[in-house]
Order: sequence, then C-alpha cells, then structure tokens
Amino acid sequence: MEQDIAIELLSQTRVSNGWLKRISHHSTTTKSRMTLAIYLPDTANDKPLPVLYWLSGLTCNDENFCQKAGALKLASELGLAIVCPDTSPRGTDYPGEHDSWDFGSAAGFYLNATQAPWSETYQMYDYVVTELPSLIEQNFPVSDLKSISGHSMGGHGALICALKNPGHYRSVSAFSPVTNPSQCPWGEKAFSHYLGSNKQAWEAYDACELIRTSLTERLPLLIDQGSADSFLDVQLKPDNLKQACEAVNHPLTLRVQPEYDHSYYFISTFIDDHLKHHATALGIL
Amino acid sequence: MEQDIAIELLSQTRVSNGWLKRISHHSTTTKSRMTLAIYLPDTANDKPLPVLYWLSGLTCNDENFCQKAGALKLASELGLAIVCPDTSPRGTDYPGEHDSWDFGSAAGFYLNATQAPWSETYQMYDYVVTELPSLIEQNFPVSDLKSISGHSMGGHGALICALKNPGHYRSVSAFSPVTNPSQCPWGEKAFSHYLGSNKQAWEAYDACELIRTSLTERLPLLIDQGSADSFLDVQLKPDNLKQACEAVNHPLTLRVQPEYDHSYYFISTFIDDHLKHHATALGIL
Repeated sequence: MEQDIAIELLSQTRVSNGWLKRISHHSTTTKSRMTLAIYLPDTANDKPLPVLYWLSGLTCNDENFCQKAGALKLASELGLAIVCPDTSPRGTDYPGEHDSWDFGSAAGFYLNATQAPWSETYQMYDYVVTELPSLIEQNFPVSDLKSISGHSMGGHGALICALKNPGHYRSVSAFSPVTNPSQCPWGEKAFSHYLGSNKQAWEAYDACELIRTSLTERLPLLIDQGSADSFLDVQLKPDNLKQACEAVNHPLTLRVQPEYDHSYYFISTFIDDHLKHHATALGIL
Repeated sequence: MEQDIAIELLSQTRVSNGWLKRISHHSTTTKSRMTLAIYLPDTANDKPLPVLYWLSGLTCNDENFCQKAGALKLASELGLAIVCPDTSPRGTDYPGEHDSWDFGSAAGFYLNATQAPWSETYQMYDYVVTELPSLIEQNFPVSDLKSISGHSMGGHGALICALKNPGHYRSVSAFSPVTNPSQCPWGEKAFSHYLGSNKQAWEAYDACELIRTSLTERLPLLIDQGSADSFLDVQLKPDNLKQACEAVNHPLTLRVQPEYDHSYYFISTFIDDHLKHHATALGIL
C-alpha cells in the first residue's frame, strides 16, 4: 500500500560532499513510527550506491554513529551510502520499557520478540533484514548491494543478521560485539523477556550458536575489540566467538586494540579500516 | 603557588594513537574550577608538540569538538596537540546566568567582564590567552608554539585572541565566526551585560574593530562559512569582516561553502584544511 512506504524527511544536512537525511516512516513490521538516518554522498548522482547498514548499541539512536564515528568523510570518497536505523521501536509504553538502559527502549537487540507485550512491536530483526532495505532501495538512489556492521549490541545485531542470511550481505564487521548473548547478563536479561525462558529459542539470535550450527556460506568476520573495554569480560566475551569460529573453521579476524575502550572514540579510530573492508566486498575499492 | 597549578585528571581515553585527557583545575583568573580537554598524539613521546587551541561556541563545553569534529585522526598524523577549554566559568549562580543559551554559562564570549557580578569570574579572555597556555606548557609535553581556532562564539574568540596578541599565535582560523559582535543580537546582549552600555568598551573585543585599528602584524585569517547557516545574516555577518579587511588590506581567506549549515557536520567536513593550515604555520607540515 502506498501509504505504508511513505517517508517523511525530518532534516537534511550537508556533510563531506553529501547529504545526511533523517527520515521517519511507519513500519509495518514494528507497527511503530521509526526514525533512521541515511548518508548519501554526491556520487549518488552518478550510479546506484551500495549500502552499509550500521546497527548501534544500547542507549543509542540513529544519530550517534553519524555524529561521532567520523565515518562520513571516507564514505563520501568511497561512494558508500550508510544507513543507521534506531535501536528499538519507540512510542509504546510497556511496563518496564523505559526503566533501564540495557532493556526495552533503545535496547531492541535486533531480534523478533515472541513474548507479550514485546512481540507486538519489538521485531527489529525482520525490520533490519527485510523492511528497512526494501524501504531504502525504493526511496533512494542505492543498489541492492548491502553490507552490515555495528557496535556492542549492534555488533551482535550485525553478526546475527549476516550469519542467518547467507548471500544477503556482501560483508560483515563489528566493533566490541556482544558475541554470546545467551551467556552474558545483557543478553540473559533481554532474551528472557523478549524470547521467554526456553533457552533453545535464544540460540537463533546468538552469534556463537549460529557459528556452530551454520552449514552454509562462511562470511569472514572482521571484529575490533578494545583491550580496555570495561564490558569485555562480562558482556562481550570475544574469546567465546573465537573458540566457536575455530571449532568449525569459520574465518575470523579479531583485532584486540591495546588500551582502547568501548566508546565512539575507539570506533572513530578504526572505522576507516571497516569501511575499506566493506568497500572491497561491495566492489567499489 | 604549587596548589594553584595542580591539575586533576578526570579521564583519559585512547583515540587515534593518542590520549584524550579531561582535566580539572582551579583557575586563578576565573576564580573557578575549570574543565578542559587536551589531545596528545603519541608523537608527544618524541619531541614537544605544538598546540592548537580550539574555542567552542554557545552551549558547548570541552567535549563537543573532541566528539564531533573528526579532527583527532589528522592531528595524530601531524603530531599536533589540541586543547579545548570550556566556554565559560562554571559553578556560580548569578541572577540570569543559566536562563538563556546565548548568555551566561556556556556563553563567556572570551572577554574580560567589567560589570558586576560577571567581572568576578567571567575573565575568559585572560584565561585563554595567558593562564591556560601556561598551565598546559607546565604540565604536558608541548612546546610554546601555539595556534588558535574556533566555531561561532569561539570563532569570534579565536579572531580577537589572535588580533590582540601579535606574535602570540602562529596562525588563526575560524568556522562561522561572530565577526562583528557589537553589531549583532548575540554580541549586543552579551557585551552590554559583561562590558556595560558604553560601546567604546566593546571595540576591544570585536574582530571588525580590531582589524580596522590594528597597526601591527597582519596574521592571515582563514575562515569557513556555510551558505545555509541559519545565523549567517543576523549574527555572523562575514561581509562586515570582509569589508574591514579590505579597508586595511588585512589578508583574509573567506570560503563560503555552499549548502553547509552551522553544525559540527560542517566543521567535520573542512577541519582537515584548518589543521593543515595551522600545521604549516607551526612548522610540522
């Protein structure tokens, strides 16, 4: 239906010889009004741009990456569009939805919730994998070539979206991802509420589990992790992912960056390496 | 006195092969506890670094530039330290100090107030020009080579600090500066409160007036201004500065950037040009 894909332009800002647009639209997947950002370098005027989808972490929205990652300059030079969705549906007020920073609003964990009341709107997995690219490709001068990356909860999101959809993305990377949410406090809290107490249901959204059970394409994983990240041992557990990859010979480049923390300063330091990784896979470098 | 220059390290964050440190210290100039940020690339281990002082605009503190300008990567490559002071003293509660975003806290206008109660602490000009460099040079591995830049109110600050102190800075630049504060609403509001109603006193802090009356060194001015800046005509008035420069043959490079606005996205697009301008003057490029 026409009205379902109507988008509203909230703002457009000139950055690095391109336009950063904030968009609002009604999502049929999350049954919510969703806000997102898309960066379109001027090279969009020449030919359809490949798209990097960036998934942000807990407490973030579509703006953090655009403001703080320092990514748009190289994206412009490469001719790479970047799309940043929000980190959860908004506009609802379920009991407890806004009470903690690691659950509910801004903490959708990029899964399809099965438990009430969350299942009504918290369908971020389907939104990111299916509805969002369709919306972007229908409304902006982009191609259907896609890559995906993200940070922390969004790093988890990038990994599971890529691992669950062979061929959908040309490349995947992550900064400080939650690699094994079934085995860490953030994940246990979110998954038990969104997916229920049956831990078998959690495996479908856990990168370590997906690596172990994957029988299809082995998309190489590029991961940067700061050694001074205060969430490293309790929440992020990169060694679990390393072991899972080694067990099935899944290609992994895990770079532990000495003295870097969990912040966007860390991301800004290494984002250009990730952009080049994706640009190579997308055929523009 | 020893205790007057004691500094407290609030945080240090690894960024682009350097350290971003937030510092707190008691200022004898502003009689306040001041917070500032200093970025020190690892090249500091080799030889003393020249310093770029960055003055931020209304509503900002020491963090905005560090988080949003995307400057630290090239600063690291160049071997350039960057110091970002706060935009006003803090910790006082004068009548009206916190009531508006364009006056009082976060709006010190880089001048020495003469009117009560502001004159007690709002001495940002002396703080930036004298106490701050002294503190930095005593506590960090930097040289006494200095340049200065800033945005909006801070662009005004950079221009007046450079124009009033021949030889003190090797170079000066500004983004979207308030060029003629005596003739715009922001400046009229601030100057009338900080300096009183006698407009002759305002001339000492007005770049256009300083250009007209300057008889000394003519430091070239590099200025970037977005054509879509919503404050352009009413507050910033780059044409007034252009006319002042032309009248006395003061070297000015005024770049009007089509479609760019007043935001840090604009700054992030052109900051590298400014860093190179300063690096050249400082002898590191």
